[in-house]
Amino acid sequence: MEDTIKAYRLKTGKSAKLFEKSKKYHVDGVHHNIRFFEPYPFVTKSANRKFLIDVDSNKYVDYWMGHWSLILGHTQKKIVSQIKKQLSYDWMHGTLNKNSIELSEKISKAVPVAEKIRYASTGTEATMYAVRLARTITKRKTIAKIDGGWHGYTTDLLKTVNWPFHKSESSGLTDEKHIISLPYNNLEKSVKILKMKKNDLAAVIIEPVLGGGGCIPATKEYLLCIQEFCHKNNILFILDEIVTGFRFRFGCLYNTMKLDPDLVTLGKIVGGGFPIGVICGKNELMKYASTSIFSKTERAYIGGGTFSANPLSMIAGYSNLMTIKKKGNSLYGKINGFGNDARKMLSKVFNNDVIVTGKGSLFMTHFPKQNITEITNAADASKCDIAKLHNYHFQMIAKDGIFFLPGKLGAISDAHTASDVKLMKKATESFVSNLKK
Amino acid sequence: MEDTIKAYRLKTGKSAKLFEKSKKYHVDGVHHNIRFFEPYPFVTKSANRKFLIDVDSNKYVDYWMGHWSLILGHTQKKIVSQIKKQLSYDWMHGTLNKNSIELSEKISKAVPVAEKIRYASTGTEATMYAVRLARTITKRKTIAKIDGGWHGYTTDLLKTVNWPFHKSESSGLTDEKHIISLPYNNLEKSVKILKMKKNDLAAVIIEPVLGGGGCIPATKEYLLCIQEFCHKNNILFILDEIVTGFRFRFGCLYNTMKLDPDLVTLGKIVGGGFPIGVICGKNELMKYASTSIFSKTERAYIGGGTFSANPLSMIAGYSNLMTIKKKGNSLYGKINGFGNDARKMLSKVFNNDVIVTGKGSLFMTHFPKQNITEITNAADASKCDIAKLHNYHFQMIAKDGIFFLPGKLGAISDAHTASDVKLMKKATESFVSNLKK
Repeated sequence: MEDTIKAYRLKTGKSAKLFEKSKKYHVDGVHHNIRFFEPYPFVTKSANRKFLIDVDSNKYVDYWMGHWSLILGHTQKKIVSQIKKQLSYDWMHGTLNKNSIELSEKISKAVPVAEKIRYASTGTEATMYAVRLARTITKRKTIAKIDGGWHGYTTDLLKTVNWPFHKSESSGLTDEKHIISLPYNNLEKSVKILKMKKNDLAAVIIEPVLGGGGCIPATKEYLLCIQEFCHKNNILFILDEIVTGFRFRFGCLYNTMKLDPDLVTLGKIVGGGFPIGVICGKNELMKYASTSIFSKTERAYIGGGTFSANPLSMIAGYSNLMTIKKKGNSLYGKINGFGNDARKMLSKVFNNDVIVTGKGSLFMTHFPKQNITEITNAADASKCDIAKLHNYHFQMIAKDGIFFLPGKLGAISDAHTASDVKLMKKATESFVSNLKK
Repeated sequence: MEDTIKAYRLKTGKSAKLFEKSKKYHVDGVHHNIRFFEPYPFVTKSANRKFLIDVDSNKYVDYWMGHWSLILGHTQKKIVSQIKKQLSYDWMHGTLNKNSIELSEKISKAVPVAEKIRYASTGTEATMYAVRLARTITKRKTIAKIDGGWHGYTTDLLKTVNWPFHKSESSGLTDEKHIISLPYNNLEKSVKILKMKKNDLAAVIIEPVLGGGGCIPATKEYLLCIQEFCHKNNILFILDEIVTGFRFRFGCLYNTMKLDPDLVTLGKIVGGGFPIGVICGKNELMKYASTSIFSKTERAYIGGGTFSANPLSMIAGYSNLMTIKKKGNSLYGKINGFGNDARKMLSKVFNNDVIVTGKGSLFMTHFPKQNITEITNAADASKCDIAKLHNYHFQMIAKDGIFFLPGKLGAISDAHTASDVKLMKKATESFVSNLKK
């Protein structure tokens, strides 16, 4: 490992200096806790298609892809030209624009539940509004989420994100008692917990593939049964598809599982890498945000903010969805295929000493510490050796020109090719052979 | 009024059709409650310097200026060229970039309290993090805000925004009891309320000019005494300068009043119209967000999100601040002067039947319904005739090509000229003469 750190330091001298400067101004030198890694994160100068390029001109094949938001790769040309055009029209006016109508038309066609939409600027805001709306509609207070489920920083959902789940995620929170948490894919235990709280339960919010919590897909049965429980007990069923929306197909993941969520949150891909958060749902539910129907104490205050539905985010999202739609199955077939190839390759190279989770173009390598044979929830994932995963990712950064945000899942984009899976194979073989030394 | 609505409908036919379409997809047809006005809001096609241009090619001299974020006017050329350049480098990578360091260097020089900074993507997020941090540091729960104070949609501060203040701002909130509220500029009553809660008080958060609450400056004495009370009782004093930062001078308003806030939130102008929220403060306080010093239960989870410190927002903000700094006193002298001219003109034309509040380039007209002679807080403002203000603003939209978001304060930008105050005078005279009919 010392050797790897030395190699990293050697090639990232300018980043090291800039990071010292960044530490002067910024807490821990970064703007997002997860963006720091030891000994220091490199400083990105630019990006191009599948590559990140740092200030020392090192190139990395990027699997972080802007928090997994860039399904077409970096600096997608059509978005560049649309944004340049829009810049001459304006980027901020805080009034209604046509771009938002055009984006909503696209989203609502692909996501049937999106009968009504409101835009926010971040996923954090979108999930905050979704649970607020659920509390308004049901007149109940408690929200159930998943152990390891990540829905952004909103105070309303900041609980049971990181292991150990029973410990608070942050100091300074006031209202954790209205959030309860379920073990993913464990139907029996989940229903038992839900039953205890069902009379005060406003909503269950679930990612259909646990993202930050370990890249773990939910089983169709789990989601269907949780949904059934919700609908039987007048509890809203909210799917957080911020990561999964338009990731595996042109639309949401829920459509493939015969699910019928009440509300859905979207973000990332639908903004083309520009700030966006989307809350959408059935008309009969979304109407509880209406100022024309309800007084301030009756309605849920949702959507908005200075930057909501700004023309750049709207046109970037629209342009992105148009390009994705045009590419259609050829895009999804390709990147889902590379994802399968990567998962198979990793299992093989690691000689089944790892568990590779994921779905389609998303994948993550886990190094089991205990006697685990499968990873079906975040508790399983937390029993893996996160330090070893960091070392693996870091070695690829330092020596192989491959970038995963250390410890996080990888996302394949349209810019990746079969040669990238081969490069990852080579880098992984090198890591495995170092392990044996 | 019917005549005015007719005139508006006549010139905004395309907007009317598009708004019908927008209503199909969006709750109340908009993405932010305040962006709707009767009979329907026009749809903006583009903007240029001081003008908004709608889809029917009507031009409006704009005083809304992107939620007051555009102090240099729309489509500022230097920002356009910087953003175009950055687009070829990338707009989203979710790793550290040089742009954020450069922006922070500028901010910290102009805002001495900004020893450490973290970026979020919206003001709502920035204030949420500020109060979370305060709760962490003080190990207390209660936050005091101002009646009529607006700090975004975060659940943590969504109380006492709109009259009547005793009624909840939204359904679906769980924790309003940890927010208490003070009457602005009423020191005696404010201190009395603070005293009752002082042992559980984490922070007081105040806008030095009440923005959404009526464009009302705080007196220096009020702020100094509240700050003194805070510091004597180990309560954090937070200034929300999202509206006021870089609005009246190159830096914050607090510097001019010998104030020493613990934390400051910024947004709007420091992002050049691109999505941004800033939380900054003294090193000894901001460190409570550090992952390298504290465990997850001890630290405050602050900053971050997929889009935080994205290279476009960072470079737009940097470019904006550089241009503002270069213009220096000539900018602030000019727009503050036009603000004074506007206030004087309005008082005169309305023959002192209105109260015009504001400071520098921000101003707002109030139509007193009851026997009010001055407006020093949001309760005073709420005793004014908001319908008449809407009519006044709407008539200017319909007949004079002048845009204030109906009911909201106006902001003068560098793009405005003396002729705009004259145009507003003429429009106001026409409104007054209509009133007398």
